[in-house]
Amino acid sequence: MSRQRPVIGVFDSGFGGLTVLREIVRLVPNAEYLYFGDTARLPYGTKSAETVARYALGACHFLESQGAEHLVIACNTATALAMDAIEANAHVPAIGVVEPGANAASALSKTRNVSVIGTEATISSHAYHHALERHGINAYEKATPLLVPLVEEGWIDHPVTKQVAEIYLQDAFVRREQRSDVLVLGCTHYPLIRPLLRKVVPSDVAIVDSAESTAKALAKKLGIGPPSASAAGATQAAGARAEMAPAPEPQEGTPDFRFFVTDSVQKFRRLGSGFLGHPVDNVEHVDLGG
Amino acid sequence: MSRQRPVIGVFDSGFGGLTVLREIVRLVPNAEYLYFGDTARLPYGTKSAETVARYALGACHFLESQGAEHLVIACNTATALAMDAIEANAHVPAIGVVEPGANAASALSKTRNVSVIGTEATISSHAYHHALERHGINAYEKATPLLVPLVEEGWIDHPVTKQVAEIYLQDAFVRREQRSDVLVLGCTHYPLIRPLLRKVVPSDVAIVDSAESTAKALAKKLGIGPPSASAAGATQAAGARAEMAPAPEPQEGTPDFRFFVTDSVQKFRRLGSGFLGHPVDNVEHVDLGG
Repeated sequence: MSRQRPVIGVFDSGFGGLTVLREIVRLVPNAEYLYFGDTARLPYGTKSAETVARYALGACHFLESQGAEHLVIACNTATALAMDAIEANAHVPAIGVVEPGANAASALSKTRNVSVIGTEATISSHAYHHALERHGINAYEKATPLLVPLVEEGWIDHPVTKQVAEIYLQDAFVRREQRSDVLVLGCTHYPLIRPLLRKVVPSDVAIVDSAESTAKALAKKLGIGPPSASAAGATQAAGARAEMAPAPEPQEGTPDFRFFVTDSVQKFRRLGSGFLGHPVDNVEHVDLGG
Repeated sequence: MSRQRPVIGVFDSGFGGLTVLREIVRLVPNAEYLYFGDTARLPYGTKSAETVARYALGACHFLESQGAEHLVIACNTATALAMDAIEANAHVPAIGVVEPGANAASALSKTRNVSVIGTEATISSHAYHHALERHGINAYEKATPLLVPLVEEGWIDHPVTKQVAEIYLQDAFVRREQRSDVLVLGCTHYPLIRPLLRKVVPSDVAIVDSAESTAKALAKKLGIGPPSASAAGATQAAGARAEMAPAPEPQEGTPDFRFFVTDSVQKFRRLGSGFLGHPVDNVEHVDLGG
C-alpha cells in the first residue's frame, strides 16, 4: 500500500493553493502530497512575468527534487505567467489552474460571456481571455487586488469586503450590455469568500472555482474514477466537458502531507488550516536563495 | 561641486520609502541618492523577522557596494525587525525610521499616550512600544494591514479606505479611556492617505509622519542646518527634541538619483512618481539572488 501511491507536488506563492489541495485530496486521498508555499516572496500577483517565472521554476525544480511525479500549479498568477516555461522545463507532467477553470466556465455558460476576477498580474496576462476564446467565449476580465488582503485580514464575511466586491463587480454584472452568466474565481484565495460573492452576483450567475475543476482534471489524468462525460448532460448545458462530469467516486486511502515554506513555519501552520480545512502539520522551512 | 556631496543610500521593500526620500531631498538637495526597492520580494510587513533581516542585510550590502556613505532604512518593518542586525553589519552609519518617529511623537504628546499604526510585522515587533517607553510614553499599537493595499490600489481618497481606517482606529481614539493625542504613521505608505486620516482622527490629535522626522534627523546628522532646539519651544510642548525644531534652511543644489529595483523597472517608474512627488527615471534592475 505504501508504494504505487502517486507523489503529487502542489505549488503556490503562499496559502491560496491549499484550497486547491483541499479539493484534490477529496478526490485523490490515496496519495503523497508535497506542498510548496513561497511565503517569503508572496504575493506573486503584483509582480512581473519574468520574476514570477523565475520563482515558479525554482519551486517546480524543488518539488521534483523531493520526488514529485506530478506537478499542480495551484496559483493562478504562476499558471498565467509561467505555464509555458514550466511545461518546457519540468521533467514530470504539470497541470495549471487556468485551463480547468476555463473549461468549466465554458461548460456552464449559455450567453458565452464570462467574467473572470484575479490578481493584477493574472488579469494583465489575459491568460483566461485566451483560454476562453478557444471555447468561443467572450471574457470580461477584472483585476480585484484588494480581495486577497481582505481574505488574509480574515474579513471573510465583512461589510467592507462586500462593498469592495460590489465596486469591482458592478461593471461585470450591472453595467454591461452582454451580461456574463458565469464568474470565474481566478485566484485561489477567492473560494474563501465564495459565500459573500454569491450574495453580490446575480442569482442566475454560476460561480466557477478553479480549485474544484483543477482537482477533477488531475483525477482524470491519474485515471481515478471514470472520465464519463455522459452522465453530465442531464443537468449541464450542451458542450459540457469531462471536467464538469460528476466527481469520480472518491478513492479509499489516507493522504500523507509534507509542507515546505520559504517564510515562517509557525505562521504557515497557524493560517494554513483555514485554507486547507484541517490542521497543517509537518511543515519545513526551505531557502531557495531568495 | 561634483564631489564633497554625500552619497546617501535609501532602502525600502518597495515604493513607500520614496515618501521618506522626498522629505530628505527637500532638506538635503545637494547629494547623490541611491534608492533600493526590493520590489520582487515586497511586502515585508507580513513576513517573519528572520526573512526580513536577511533581505534587509542584502539590500544594505548592495547599497554599500554602490558607494553609499550613509544608509537610511526607509521602511518601518525593516527598521523594526532588523535595525540591530543592520547596525552590527553595516560599514557606514545607518538611520532608521522608528527612533525619529518616536522622538517626534514624544515632543508632541501631552497626555503621554500615543497611538501607532503599521504593518503586522512592525506592530508585532513592538519596536515603537519600546522606543516610546524610553520617553515615558504609553503606546497603543494597532496593525492596519489593509491600508497598504488600499494605497497601492490608488484608493487614496475613497469611502472604503475611510471606513477601513475608522474600523482600525476606533479603539485608539474612541473606546480608550487614556486617549492618545498623537498618531504615528508607522509605515511609509501612510503619508499618502494623511489627508484622509486627518478626517478620521479627532482634530486635536497630532499626526506624526516618520518620513519628515527621519529627514530632519538625517539632516542634523549630516550637519546641515543648525540643530537649534531653542526656537522650537514657543509652539512645542515641553520636552521637545531637536527633531521637532524648525526644518533647517534648505541647502542649495540639485540631487542626482539612481534607483535600483528587484522587480519590473517599468512598474517602478510608473508608480514611483506618485510616492516621490516627481518623475522617477534612471531605474536599474538588480537581482540579489531571490
